Amino acid sequence: MRTGIATVCLSGTLKEKMQACAIAGFDGIEIFEQDLVTSALSPEAVRAMAADLGLGLDLYQPFRDFDSVPEELLKENLRRAGAKFELMSRLGMDTILVCSNVATAEIDDDGLRAEQLTRLAHLAGEHGVKVAYEALAWGKYVNDYEHAHRLVEMVDHPNLGTCLDSFHILSRDWDTAPIEKINAEKIFFVQVADAPKLSMDVLSWSRHYRVFPGEGQLELAKFMGHVVRAGYAGPVSLEVFNDVFRQSDVERTAVDAMRSLIWLEEQSAKWLDANDPGAAGASGTSASGRRRYPMELATLPKVAEPAGFNFAEVKADDTAGLEKLLGQLGFEFEGRHRTKDVQLWTMGHARVIINEQAPSHAEPAIAALGFDVDNPVIASARAQQLKAPVVPRKVQADEEVFQGIAAPDSTEIFLCQGSPDGTAAWTHEFGDGLATPSGTGAVIDHVNLAQPWQHFDEAVLFYTSALALEPAPFAEVPSPTGLVRSQVMQTTDRAVRLVLNLAPLIQQGAHAGYQEHIAFAVDDLVGLARDARDRGLEFLQIPANYYEDLAARFSLDPGFLATLKELNLLYDRDASGEFLHFYTATVGSVFFEMVERRGGYDGYGAPNAPVRHAVQYDHARRATDPRNATTKYATERSRP
Amino acid sequence: MRTGIATVCLSGTLKEKMQACAIAGFDGIEIFEQDLVTSALSPEAVRAMAADLGLGLDLYQPFRDFDSVPEELLKENLRRAGAKFELMSRLGMDTILVCSNVATAEIDDDGLRAEQLTRLAHLAGEHGVKVAYEALAWGKYVNDYEHAHRLVEMVDHPNLGTCLDSFHILSRDWDTAPIEKINAEKIFFVQVADAPKLSMDVLSWSRHYRVFPGEGQLELAKFMGHVVRAGYAGPVSLEVFNDVFRQSDVERTAVDAMRSLIWLEEQSAKWLDANDPGAAGASGTSASGRRRYPMELATLPKVAEPAGFNFAEVKADDTAGLEKLLGQLGFEFEGRHRTKDVQLWTMGHARVIINEQAPSHAEPAIAALGFDVDNPVIASARAQQLKAPVVPRKVQADEEVFQGIAAPDSTEIFLCQGSPDGTAAWTHEFGDGLATPSGTGAVIDHVNLAQPWQHFDEAVLFYTSALALEPAPFAEVPSPTGLVRSQVMQTTDRAVRLVLNLAPLIQQGAHAGYQEHIAFAVDDLVGLARDARDRGLEFLQIPANYYEDLAARFSLDPGFLATLKELNLLYDRDASGEFLHFYTATVGSVFFEMVERRGGYDGYGAPNAPVRHAVQYDHARRATDPRNATTKYATERSRP
Repeated sequence: MRTGIATVCLSGTLKEKMQACAIAGFDGIEIFEQDLVTSALSPEAVRAMAADLGLGLDLYQPFRDFDSVPEELLKENLRRAGAKFELMSRLGMDTILVCSNVATAEIDDDGLRAEQLTRLAHLAGEHGVKVAYEALAWGKYVNDYEHAHRLVEMVDHPNLGTCLDSFHILSRDWDTAPIEKINAEKIFFVQVADAPKLSMDVLSWSRHYRVFPGEGQLELAKFMGHVVRAGYAGPVSLEVFNDVFRQSDVERTAVDAMRSLIWLEEQSAKWLDANDPGAAGASGTSASGRRRYPMELATLPKVAEPAGFNFAEVKADDTAGLEKLLGQLGFEFEGRHRTKDVQLWTMGHARVIINEQAPSHAEPAIAALGFDVDNPVIASARAQQLKAPVVPRKVQADEEVFQGIAAPDSTEIFLCQGSPDGTAAWTHEFGDGLATPSGTGAVIDHVNLAQPWQHFDEAVLFYTSALALEPAPFAEVPSPTGLVRSQVMQTTDRAVRLVLNLAPLIQQGAHAGYQEHIAFAVDDLVGLARDARDRGLEFLQIPANYYEDLAARFSLDPGFLATLKELNLLYDRDASGEFLHFYTATVGSVFFEMVERRGGYDGYGAPNAPVRHAVQYDHARRATDPRNATTKYATERSRP
Repeated sequence: MRTGIATVCLSGTLKEKMQACAIAGFDGIEIFEQDLVTSALSPEAVRAMAADLGLGLDLYQPFRDFDSVPEELLKENLRRAGAKFELMSRLGMDTILVCSNVATAEIDDDGLRAEQLTRLAHLAGEHGVKVAYEALAWGKYVNDYEHAHRLVEMVDHPNLGTCLDSFHILSRDWDTAPIEKINAEKIFFVQVADAPKLSMDVLSWSRHYRVFPGEGQLELAKFMGHVVRAGYAGPVSLEVFNDVFRQSDVERTAVDAMRSLIWLEEQSAKWLDANDPGAAGASGTSASGRRRYPMELATLPKVAEPAGFNFAEVKADDTAGLEKLLGQLGFEFEGRHRTKDVQLWTMGHARVIINEQAPSHAEPAIAALGFDVDNPVIASARAQQLKAPVVPRKVQADEEVFQGIAAPDSTEIFLCQGSPDGTAAWTHEFGDGLATPSGTGAVIDHVNLAQPWQHFDEAVLFYTSALALEPAPFAEVPSPTGLVRSQVMQTTDRAVRLVLNLAPLIQQGAHAGYQEHIAFAVDDLVGLARDARDRGLEFLQIPANYYEDLAARFSLDPGFLATLKELNLLYDRDASGEFLHFYTATVGSVFFEMVERRGGYDGYGAPNAPVRHAVQYDHARRATDPRNATTKYATERSRP
C-alpha cells in the first residue's frame, strides 16, 4: 500500500512538515495549497527537497468551487485552474483534487456540470494534469461519491477521475459497496480519515474533529476493503483536519499518522479475509489464502490480546511513602532485586515493583506496566513495526530480557511471558520461591493513567494497535477543576483494563492533574479495609453527604451502609452486579484503589469519580492554600 | 431583579463557590446536588455559611427521571424524593427542580404524568417544599415548556409550579410569547443561559457550550421581557454548563457571571421599552415611562458607542525598537510628558504613547487603549457598575484625569473625552500645539489583542456591555501552530474596530502566541510603504508564492501586482471594495500594520492572515532553532 498524508494534518512550515513525513516513512504527500502559498520555498525548491527526501508529491489540493456556475464565472475558473496547472508543472506534480462546488454553484444540471468538467479535463490534458473530482459531504449539488463518479463517466476523459474520501462518504452514511463497481483506472486518488461519531453539522465535524484511522468510530477497514476489491492500487493518503494535531509536535504527529495507516492496512486485509474467504480469483491468492489484488497489503506480526497484567512499577526518589501504603494495604515485601535498586511487593497475583532508581527529588509516579503476552518477541516486533519507540533495559547474564516499548505518555510498557498459572519467571531475581503466587486471589484490576492533552488520540491508537486493547465508549466525569475525559481500553475478558484520563487543561502541568492510580481487585474488600485501617492506612476520606445520597439512590441495608461509611468505602450497582471500592491518600502523583467486583459488574464506579476528584482537590488545596487550612464551618467527615 | 447562579457554573469546592458568589454580589444560589454530595460541609454547615454570606439558597437541583414510569419505579422515585425533601429541610431550602424524565420514562400519557406529579406535589407539600417542574429540551416525552406547564395546570396543586430555562426553550426555537399567559404564581423559578448557535445535538450543546448572557447568540432579552410581563418577580438564576468556566478561577468567573445578569437586566428593560411603549397599565409606569411590573429592573448609566480611538499605548523597558519602527513608518515624535517617562508619537489622528515605565527587561507589549466617549465619568460609572476593575492612574494637578478600567486580558482601557475635531486636550502635557492633528488623515484602524483562553467569552461580554461594541461573527484562521479564533468587536460606524484573538493552546504562555498589533489606516499605502522602505523599515517578508496565488485568484494589473510584491503588500477584495496592507517585523510581542481601505471594504484581509502567521512563525523559529538557521533549499523572498 502506498502511504500518503496531506500537509494540512500537521503543524509547522511546509519544510518542517515534509521533513517529518520523510522521517515517519511516508511514500508521498499531498500539498495543501495554503502550506505552499505561505511558504518561503519556491515550487522548484519544494520539488528538489521532496526528491532528496524520497517523498512523492502525489496530490495538489484543494481546487474549490469550479462546477455548476454561469459561463462567465466558468471562464474565470478555467483561468484560475490554468495558473494552478502551470504551478504544478514547476512542482513536478500531476494530480490535483477538485472538490464539488459549495460557495458559487448556481445551476443544478448534470449535463452542464459534465460539460464544464469536460472543459477542465481538456485543459488539464494540455498540461499533463489529472483531475481527481471529489464530492464534498456538504457540496451544494454534488455531495455523494456515486453522483461525482457518474459525472466522471459522463465526461469520459482520460484526465478526469474520481477522488474517494472516507470522511465525505462515511459521514453521510453512503453505502460503500458500490465503490467496487468503479473502474479502478478512474479512481485517481483515495483519502482516508476517521472521526468520532458526533451529532453536529458535517462541516464543523470535518474541519475540527477528524482523527487518524483507529482513533475514531468510522468503518474504515470496510471502506478500504471495497477500494481494494475495486482494483485500486494508488496512494492511500491521510487527510485529517484536527484542532489538536494542528498544534502538536510535527514529527510525533507524523509518526502517529503513519502508525494509523500501518494499522489500517492490517485491518483492511482482515476485512478482506473475513469477507472474501478463499475466493481465489484469476490473479491468484496470497500466502494467507486471500485473493490477490493490485494493491499489496503488508501484514504485521499477529498478537492476541494480553492475558493480564504481569506487574506494575512505581518509581520515586524517596520510596518510603509507597512502601508504607503497600504495607498497610496488606502487600508483602518479597525482597530486593539481586543487582538493581528495586523492590518487589506482592498480594496474590498482583505484583508491584518499587523502583528506587529515580532522579533526585522525583515524586512517586507510575513508571511502567508489564503485560502477559503469548510471545513477547512477536509482540515487540509488532509494536516496533507500528513505530513504538523501544525502551532499552540493561540486563545481567541470566536475567529476564524484557521487551519494552514506550507509550505516548512515556509510561514504559513491558511485554512479558505469560503463564497459565500466573507465575512470573523473573521473580527469582528477587529471591527463591516467589514465582508462584500465594495468599489471596488479588489481581491488578485496572490502571488509570493521566494523558497529556496533545497525545490522547495517539494513546488510543497505540493501545489498540500495539497491544490489541479495545476502546470502550468514553465518559466525562466532573471534577472541581473541570471535566475529566475518561477512556477505558480493555480486553474482551477484562483481564486487562486500562483507563486513560484526560485532565482539564488548567491542570495540565500542575501536579494535581497528573494523579494516576493502580487498582487491585480482592475477594473481601470489607475485611481488607478493616485490616488496613488497623494497620493505620490513610484512606481517602469520603464526605458523609455521599452516604446520604447513596441511601436516597439505593435501598441499602442500614448495617451495610454503616459499614461503608465507617470504612470510607464507595458503592455502585448496575443490572449485573455490585462494586465496592476505596482509595488511599496520594503520594506524589500516585494513589491506590482496592476494589471488589460482585456478580458481573463491569464498570469502574463512575458515579463515584466526582467524589474522589472533589476530595483529592480539597485535600490538595488545604495543603497549599492557607485560606483553607482552618475553617469556621465544621466539616463533617465520615471517619470517627 | 433577584440574581442567582447555580453552583455547577463554577470551579472549586462548594465552599469556594459560595464565597465567590457572595463576593460577586449574587442574591442567591442554586445548589447543584453533586456539589453538596462531594462536599465535606454538612447541610447544616452549608445553611449557616449561606446565612453568614448573605446568600439565599434558592433552588436545590436537579431531581431527575421522576415521571412517566411504571408504578413500582414511581414508588421508588417518591422514596428518593422524600429523602431529598428531608435533606432540603436541613439546608433550609424550599424549592427543588424536577426535570422531565429522560432515562427511565416508559409511558407517554399526560393523565398518568399528572397523577404522578400530583403524588409528588402532595409529598412535597407535607415537607413544605415547592416543586419547579422543567421540560428538558431532550426530555423523552416532555421537552416543551408549554407541555410542562399544561401538566402543572392539570395537577393544580400549590406545591407544583413551572421552571423556565432559557436554554431549554430557545435551543428548540420554542415561541416565548406564550410565557406571558402563564399565571405568575405558577412560575416557581427562572434559569437563564446563553449559547452560541451551534448545529449539534442539543444535549452536547447544553452540557459543554452554554455561556453567560451576552456571550452567545440567544434572544435572552426577549425571553426575559415575556417573563417580566407574565408578572414573575422571583430569582433570575444562571445555569451555565461550560467546559472553560468549570476550570477557570472561581472568583473571576463569578464576577463575569454577575456582569452578565446586570447586562441582561438592562437589555430586558430595553426590550420592554421597545415592545411596550407608553402602555401605562394599572400598576403605573416607571420613571422611564415603562409600565410597572412586579419585577424591578435596575438601570445602568447609558452610553453611546465610542466615537473612535483616542490613543494606543505600548510599554517596554527598552523602547528603542518601538521608536525606530514608528519613526520609519512616518510617525512624528511629539515630545515627552512633562512629568512621566512617556513619549507621544503621532501620524494624523493616530496617537501612540510609548511608555518607558515598564519593569526591568519587560518586552514591548500593548498596555493600554484610549477610547473617545461622550462623557468619561458616565462611561466609567457604567463600567464599574458592570464590575470592571478600576485602574488607578496618578496625576499631577492640572493634568487630565483619565477614567481607566481593566479589560479581562489586563489591557488598560481609558475612557477619554472625545471631540468633534479629533483633538485631545491631554496632549498639551507633552508640549504646545499638539492638540490639533496635522499631516495625513491617518487614524488607528483596528487593534488586535491576544486573549488568554480562559477569558475569551468574558472579554466579549466586557466589550459588549462596558464599551457598547458589537461582536461580529467569529472567524478561524489557520496558523502553523493551530487555528486562531478571531472575534471582531466593532462600532456601527467602524470608528472602533477591536479584534480579539485566541491563539492555539500550545502557544498560550509562549511569546509567539501573544503577538498583538495596532493597525493604522492611511490614504496612500503604496506611497507610505515606499517612504518607509527608504527609511529602512523592516517589513514582514511575504513569500513569492503568495503573489502567484494572488494572480491566480484575482485578475490584477501586472504593474500593480509587481508593486505589491516589491513592497511586501498584501491584497484583498470583496464586493464593496479593496484592502491593501503590510506588517512590520515584531518587537517583543508587538508589531504594526498599515492599511488602506478602498471603497466600502469592511474586513481585515482574513485570507491573508495565514500568510502573516506562517511568516511570523518561520521568523521566530529561525531565530530560536539552529536547525532552521541555514537551509540547503534556497528560499525565495519577494524583497530584492
